Amino acid sequence: MSVTDDLLANAERYAANFDKGDLPLPPALGVAVLACMDARLNPYGVLGLKEGDAHVIRNAGGVVTADELRSLAISQRLLGTTEIILIHHTDCGMLTFTDDEFKASIQADTGLKPAWAAEAFSNLEDDVRQSIARIKADPFIPRKESVRGFVYDVATGKLAEVPA
Amino acid sequence: MSVTDDLLANAERYAANFDKGDLPLPPALGVAVLACMDARLNPYGVLGLKEGDAHVIRNAGGVVTADELRSLAISQRLLGTTEIILIHHTDCGMLTFTDDEFKASIQADTGLKPAWAAEAFSNLEDDVRQSIARIKADPFIPRKESVRGFVYDVATGKLAEVPA
Repeated sequence: MSVTDDLLANAERYAANFDKGDLPLPPALGVAVLACMDARLNPYGVLGLKEGDAHVIRNAGGVVTADELRSLAISQRLLGTTEIILIHHTDCGMLTFTDDEFKASIQADTGLKPAWAAEAFSNLEDDVRQSIARIKADPFIPRKESVRGFVYDVATGKLAEVPA
Repeated sequence: MSVTDDLLANAERYAANFDKGDLPLPPALGVAVLACMDARLNPYGVLGLKEGDAHVIRNAGGVVTADELRSLAISQRLLGTTEIILIHHTDCGMLTFTDDEFKASIQADTGLKPAWAAEAFSNLEDDVRQSIARIKADPFIPRKESVRGFVYDVATGKLAEVPA
Protein backbone atom coordinates (compact mmCIF):
# COMPACT_ATOMS: atom_id res chain seq x y z
CA MET A 1 0.00 0.00 0.00
CA SER A 2 1.35 3.40 -0.99
CA VAL A 3 0.50 6.66 0.76
CA THR A 4 -1.53 7.48 -2.35
CA ASP A 5 -3.69 4.40 -1.67
CA ASP A 6 -4.27 5.55 1.91
CA LEU A 7 -5.40 8.96 0.66
CA LEU A 8 -7.80 7.31 -1.80
CA ALA A 9 -9.52 5.67 1.15
CA ASN A 10 -9.99 9.17 2.60
CA ALA A 11 -11.47 10.27 -0.74
CA GLU A 12 -14.08 7.50 -0.52
CA ARG A 13 -15.14 8.78 2.90
CA TYR A 14 -15.34 12.36 1.56
CA ALA A 15 -17.60 11.25 -1.31
CA ALA A 16 -19.82 9.23 1.05
CA ASN A 17 -20.63 12.41 3.02
CA PHE A 18 -20.68 14.80 0.04
CA ASP A 19 -23.45 17.42 -0.09
CA LYS A 20 -21.94 20.19 -2.25
CA GLY A 21 -22.89 18.92 -5.70
CA ASP A 22 -24.64 22.06 -6.91
CA LEU A 23 -21.97 24.73 -6.55
CA PRO A 24 -21.42 27.02 -9.56
CA LEU A 25 -18.12 27.17 -11.47
CA PRO A 26 -17.23 30.84 -10.64
CA PRO A 27 -15.79 31.32 -7.13
CA ALA A 28 -18.48 32.67 -4.80
CA LEU A 29 -16.18 35.17 -3.09
CA GLY A 30 -14.54 36.49 -6.29
CA VAL A 31 -11.09 35.88 -4.83
CA ALA A 32 -7.95 34.14 -6.11
CA VAL A 33 -5.40 33.04 -3.51
CA LEU A 34 -1.77 32.44 -4.55
CA ALA A 35 0.19 30.65 -1.83
CA CYS A 36 3.30 28.56 -1.28
CA MET A 37 2.87 24.77 -1.65
CA ASP A 38 4.28 24.26 1.88
CA ALA A 39 2.63 21.39 3.75
CA ARG A 40 2.11 23.43 6.93
CA LEU A 41 0.19 26.23 5.17
CA ASN A 42 -3.48 25.27 4.74
CA PRO A 43 -5.26 28.14 2.97
CA TYR A 44 -8.68 26.60 3.70
CA GLY A 45 -7.98 26.59 7.42
CA VAL A 46 -6.21 29.95 7.60
CA LEU A 47 -8.69 31.93 5.49
CA GLY A 48 -11.77 29.94 6.47
CA LEU A 49 -12.43 28.94 2.86
CA LYS A 50 -14.94 26.27 1.99
CA GLU A 51 -15.77 24.49 -1.25
CA GLY A 52 -16.93 26.98 -3.90
CA ASP A 53 -15.37 30.09 -2.36
CA ALA A 54 -12.08 30.89 -4.10
CA HIS A 55 -9.50 29.87 -6.66
CA VAL A 56 -6.37 28.55 -4.98
CA ILE A 57 -3.10 28.67 -6.92
CA ARG A 58 0.05 27.26 -5.33
CA ASN A 59 3.69 26.58 -6.14
CA ALA A 60 7.13 26.38 -4.53
CA GLY A 61 7.44 29.73 -2.76
CA GLY A 62 4.11 31.20 -3.75
CA VAL A 63 6.01 33.12 -6.41
CA VAL A 64 4.69 34.72 -9.61
CA THR A 65 5.99 33.20 -12.84
CA ALA A 66 4.39 32.93 -16.28
CA ASP A 67 2.15 30.08 -15.14
CA GLU A 68 0.67 32.04 -12.23
CA LEU A 69 -0.01 34.98 -14.56
CA ARG A 70 -1.79 32.51 -16.89
CA SER A 71 -3.89 31.15 -14.02
CA LEU A 72 -4.75 34.63 -12.71
CA ALA A 73 -5.71 35.84 -16.20
CA ILE A 74 -8.07 32.86 -16.57
CA SER A 75 -9.42 33.39 -13.04
CA GLN A 76 -10.27 37.04 -13.66
CA ARG A 77 -11.21 37.05 -17.36
CA LEU A 78 -13.25 33.84 -17.52
CA LEU A 79 -14.43 33.31 -13.95
CA GLY A 80 -14.88 36.81 -12.62
CA THR A 81 -12.50 37.05 -9.64
CA THR A 82 -11.42 40.58 -8.74
CA GLU A 83 -9.26 40.29 -5.59
CA ILE A 84 -5.86 38.59 -5.24
CA ILE A 85 -4.35 37.38 -1.96
CA LEU A 86 -0.66 36.38 -1.94
CA ILE A 87 0.70 34.24 0.90
CA HIS A 88 4.34 33.44 1.66
CA HIS A 89 5.33 31.94 5.05
CA THR A 90 8.09 31.79 7.64
CA ASP A 91 10.63 28.92 7.58
CA CYS A 92 10.13 28.58 3.81
CA GLY A 93 12.36 26.13 1.97
CA MET A 94 13.00 28.82 -0.66
CA LEU A 95 15.04 30.72 1.96
CA THR A 96 17.47 27.79 2.34
CA PHE A 97 19.23 27.74 -1.03
CA THR A 98 20.19 29.89 -4.00
CA ASP A 99 19.18 29.37 -7.61
CA ASP A 100 22.81 28.89 -8.60
CA GLU A 101 23.57 26.20 -6.04
CA PHE A 102 20.31 24.30 -6.60
CA LYS A 103 20.76 24.30 -10.35
CA ALA A 104 24.44 23.31 -10.04
CA SER A 105 23.39 20.35 -7.85
CA ILE A 106 20.87 19.26 -10.46
CA GLN A 107 23.47 19.60 -13.19
CA ALA A 108 25.92 17.51 -11.14
CA ASP A 109 23.24 14.83 -10.75
CA THR A 110 21.73 14.75 -14.23
CA GLY A 111 24.25 16.42 -16.54
CA LEU A 112 21.63 19.02 -17.44
CA LYS A 113 21.03 22.51 -16.04
CA PRO A 114 17.32 23.48 -15.79
CA ALA A 115 16.31 26.27 -18.15
CA TRP A 116 13.93 27.60 -15.45
CA ALA A 117 14.72 29.91 -12.56
CA ALA A 118 14.36 28.15 -9.19
CA GLU A 119 12.95 31.43 -7.74
CA ALA A 120 14.73 31.09 -4.38
CA PHE A 121 14.69 34.27 -2.26
CA SER A 122 16.50 35.60 0.80
CA ASN A 123 13.85 37.95 2.27
CA LEU A 124 10.20 36.99 2.64
CA GLU A 125 8.68 40.46 2.61
CA ASP A 126 10.82 41.55 -0.34
CA ASP A 127 9.66 38.54 -2.32
CA VAL A 128 6.02 39.22 -1.50
CA ARG A 129 6.52 42.77 -2.81
CA GLN A 130 8.26 41.35 -5.89
CA SER A 131 5.28 39.05 -6.50
CA ILE A 132 2.83 41.95 -6.21
CA ALA A 133 4.99 44.00 -8.58
CA ARG A 134 5.00 41.23 -11.18
CA ILE A 135 1.20 41.08 -11.07
CA LYS A 136 0.88 44.87 -11.29
CA ALA A 137 3.22 44.90 -14.30
CA ASP A 138 1.33 42.19 -16.19
CA PRO A 139 -0.71 43.44 -19.15
CA PHE A 140 -3.16 40.51 -19.12
CA ILE A 141 -4.59 40.73 -15.59
CA PRO A 142 -7.39 43.30 -15.67
CA ARG A 143 -8.28 43.78 -11.97
CA LYS A 144 -5.44 45.08 -9.79
CA GLU A 145 -7.30 47.23 -7.24
CA SER A 146 -6.95 44.59 -4.52
CA VAL A 147 -3.64 42.73 -4.73
CA ARG A 148 -2.46 42.23 -1.16
CA GLY A 149 0.44 40.19 0.20
CA PHE A 150 0.89 38.37 3.50
CA VAL A 151 3.39 36.29 5.46
CA TYR A 152 1.97 33.32 7.37
CA ASP A 153 3.87 32.38 10.53
CA VAL A 154 4.09 28.57 10.70
CA ALA A 155 5.00 28.75 14.42
CA THR A 156 2.05 30.88 15.56
CA GLY A 157 -0.57 30.47 12.81
CA LYS A 158 -0.74 34.25 12.38
CA LEU A 159 -1.08 36.03 9.04
CA ALA A 160 0.67 39.41 8.74
CA GLU A 161 0.19 41.83 5.87
CA VAL A 162 3.33 43.00 4.07
CA PRO A 163 3.48 46.80 3.86
CA ALA A 164 3.87 48.20 0.35
CA MET B 1 -14.76 46.21 3.58
CA SER B 2 -13.38 43.96 0.83
CA VAL B 3 -13.74 40.17 0.75
CA THR B 4 -10.03 40.07 1.58
CA ASP B 5 -10.76 41.91 4.83
CA ASP B 6 -13.46 39.37 5.69
CA LEU B 7 -11.00 36.53 5.13
CA LEU B 8 -8.45 38.24 7.38
CA ALA B 9 -10.98 38.09 10.21
CA ASN B 10 -11.14 34.32 9.62
CA ALA B 11 -7.32 34.21 9.79
CA GLU B 12 -7.40 35.82 13.24
CA ARG B 13 -9.76 33.11 14.46
CA TYR B 14 -7.49 30.40 12.98
CA ALA B 15 -4.45 31.84 14.80
CA ALA B 16 -6.37 32.11 18.07
CA ASN B 17 -6.98 28.34 18.03
CA PHE B 18 -3.63 27.33 16.51
CA ASP B 19 -1.85 24.31 17.97
CA LYS B 20 0.35 23.12 15.09
CA GLY B 21 3.44 25.27 15.66
CA ASP B 22 6.00 22.48 15.77
CA LEU B 23 5.50 20.74 12.43
CA PRO B 24 8.66 20.01 10.40
CA LEU B 25 9.30 21.54 6.96
CA PRO B 26 9.29 18.25 4.94
CA PRO B 27 5.78 16.88 4.23
CA ALA B 28 4.97 14.05 6.65
CA LEU B 29 3.36 11.84 4.00
CA GLY B 30 6.05 12.36 1.33
CA VAL B 31 3.40 13.32 -1.21
CA ALA B 32 3.00 16.21 -3.64
CA VAL B 33 -0.51 16.90 -4.95
CA LEU B 34 -0.98 18.84 -8.21
CA ALA B 35 -4.58 19.93 -8.69
CA CYS B 36 -6.72 22.43 -10.55
CA MET B 37 -7.29 25.78 -8.81
CA ASP B 38 -11.08 25.29 -9.10
CA ALA B 39 -13.02 26.64 -6.13
CA ARG B 40 -15.12 23.48 -5.74
CA LEU B 41 -12.11 21.16 -5.46
CA ASN B 42 -10.75 21.15 -1.89
CA PRO B 43 -7.74 18.79 -1.79
CA TYR B 44 -7.68 18.90 2.03
CA GLY B 45 -11.25 17.70 2.23
CA VAL B 46 -11.07 15.16 -0.60
CA LEU B 47 -7.79 13.52 0.41
CA GLY B 48 -8.18 14.04 4.15
CA LEU B 49 -4.98 16.11 4.32
CA LYS B 50 -4.11 18.08 7.42
CA GLU B 51 -1.42 20.66 8.11
CA GLY B 52 2.05 19.16 7.62
CA ASP B 53 1.01 16.26 5.37
CA ALA B 54 1.68 17.16 1.72
CA HIS B 55 2.83 19.74 -0.76
CA VAL B 56 -0.12 21.15 -2.69
CA ILE B 57 0.56 22.68 -6.10
CA ARG B 58 -2.34 24.21 -8.04
CA ASN B 59 -3.04 26.14 -11.23
CA ALA B 60 -5.70 26.67 -13.89
CA GLY B 61 -6.47 23.13 -15.05
CA GLY B 62 -4.03 21.28 -12.83
CA VAL B 63 -1.74 21.13 -15.85
CA VAL B 64 2.02 20.57 -15.98
CA THR B 65 4.07 23.50 -17.28
CA ALA B 66 7.62 24.61 -16.51
CA ASP B 67 6.57 26.05 -13.15
CA GLU B 68 4.99 22.80 -11.93
CA LEU B 69 8.14 20.91 -12.98
CA ARG B 70 10.15 23.45 -10.94
CA SER B 71 7.90 22.98 -7.90
CA LEU B 72 7.97 19.19 -8.17
CA ALA B 73 11.78 19.17 -8.53
CA ILE B 74 12.08 21.28 -5.36
CA SER B 75 9.51 19.09 -3.58
CA GLN B 76 11.37 15.88 -4.33
CA ARG B 77 15.02 17.00 -4.31
CA LEU B 78 14.96 19.32 -1.30
CA LEU B 79 12.00 18.11 0.75
CA GLY B 80 11.93 14.39 0.11
CA THR B 81 8.54 13.72 -1.45
CA THR B 82 8.33 10.55 -3.55
CA GLU B 83 4.71 10.22 -4.70
CA ILE B 84 2.76 12.55 -7.02
CA ILE B 85 -1.05 12.78 -7.21
CA LEU B 86 -2.59 14.70 -10.14
CA ILE B 87 -6.21 15.87 -9.93
CA HIS B 88 -8.35 17.31 -12.72
CA HIS B 89 -12.13 17.63 -12.28
CA THR B 90 -15.44 17.53 -14.12
CA ASP B 91 -17.06 20.80 -15.34
CA CYS B 92 -13.59 22.40 -15.58
CA GLY B 93 -13.37 25.89 -17.05
CA MET B 94 -10.48 24.69 -19.22
CA LEU B 95 -12.99 22.59 -21.21
CA THR B 96 -14.98 25.70 -22.19
CA PHE B 97 -12.58 27.53 -24.51
CA THR B 98 -9.63 27.03 -26.84
CA ASP B 99 -6.19 28.57 -26.51
CA ASP B 100 -6.65 30.38 -29.81
CA GLU B 101 -9.97 32.00 -28.91
CA PHE B 102 -8.90 32.97 -25.38
CA LYS B 103 -5.67 34.53 -26.61
CA ALA B 104 -7.47 36.31 -29.46
CA SER B 105 -9.92 37.79 -26.94
CA ILE B 106 -7.02 39.04 -24.82
CA GLN B 107 -5.36 40.51 -27.89
CA ALA B 108 -8.60 42.26 -28.84
CA ASP B 109 -8.80 43.72 -25.33
CA THR B 110 -5.18 44.68 -24.71
CA GLY B 111 -3.49 44.81 -28.11
CA LEU B 112 -1.06 42.12 -26.93
CA LYS B 113 -1.13 38.35 -27.41
CA PRO B 114 0.14 36.37 -24.40
CA ALA B 115 3.40 34.51 -25.05
CA TRP B 116 2.16 31.66 -22.84
CA ALA B 117 -0.07 28.74 -23.80
CA ALA B 118 -3.47 28.90 -22.07
CA GLU B 119 -3.38 25.06 -21.74
CA ALA B 120 -7.09 24.58 -22.46
CA PHE B 121 -8.10 20.98 -23.16
CA SER B 122 -11.08 19.14 -24.63
CA ASN B 123 -10.84 15.78 -22.83
CA LEU B 124 -10.21 15.45 -19.10
CA GLU B 125 -8.69 11.97 -19.07
CA ASP B 126 -6.46 12.73 -22.05
CA ASP B 127 -5.14 15.82 -20.30
CA VAL B 128 -4.44 13.88 -17.10
CA ARG B 129 -2.45 11.39 -19.20
CA GLN B 130 -0.66 14.31 -20.91
CA SER B 131 0.25 15.73 -17.49
CA ILE B 132 1.63 12.37 -16.33
CA ALA B 133 3.60 12.08 -19.57
CA ARG B 134 5.16 15.51 -19.09
CA ILE B 135 6.30 14.54 -15.60
CA LYS B 136 7.67 11.19 -16.80
CA ALA B 137 9.59 12.97 -19.58
CA ASP B 138 11.16 15.56 -17.27
CA PRO B 139 14.86 15.02 -16.57
CA PHE B 140 14.86 16.90 -13.23
CA ILE B 141 12.21 14.96 -11.26
CA PRO B 142 13.96 11.94 -9.74
CA ARG B 143 11.08 9.86 -8.31
CA LYS B 144 8.54 8.67 -10.89
CA GLU B 145 7.48 5.28 -9.46
CA SER B 146 4.17 6.67 -8.18
CA VAL B 147 2.71 9.33 -10.49
CA ARG B 148 -1.04 8.73 -10.55
CA GLY B 149 -3.81 10.83 -12.07
CA PHE B 150 -7.44 11.29 -11.09
CA VAL B 151 -10.63 13.08 -12.11
CA TYR B 152 -12.69 14.57 -9.27
CA ASP B 153 -16.44 14.73 -9.93
CA VAL B 154 -17.73 18.08 -8.63
CA ALA B 155 -21.33 16.77 -8.69
CA THR B 156 -20.75 13.62 -6.62
CA GLY B 157 -17.53 14.31 -4.70
CA LYS B 158 -16.01 11.09 -6.09
CA LEU B 159 -12.40 10.69 -7.20
CA ALA B 160 -11.79 8.31 -10.13
CA GLU B 161 -8.36 7.13 -11.25
CA VAL B 162 -7.48 7.67 -14.91
CA PRO B 163 -6.28 4.45 -16.54
CA ALA B 164 -2.86 4.66 -18.19
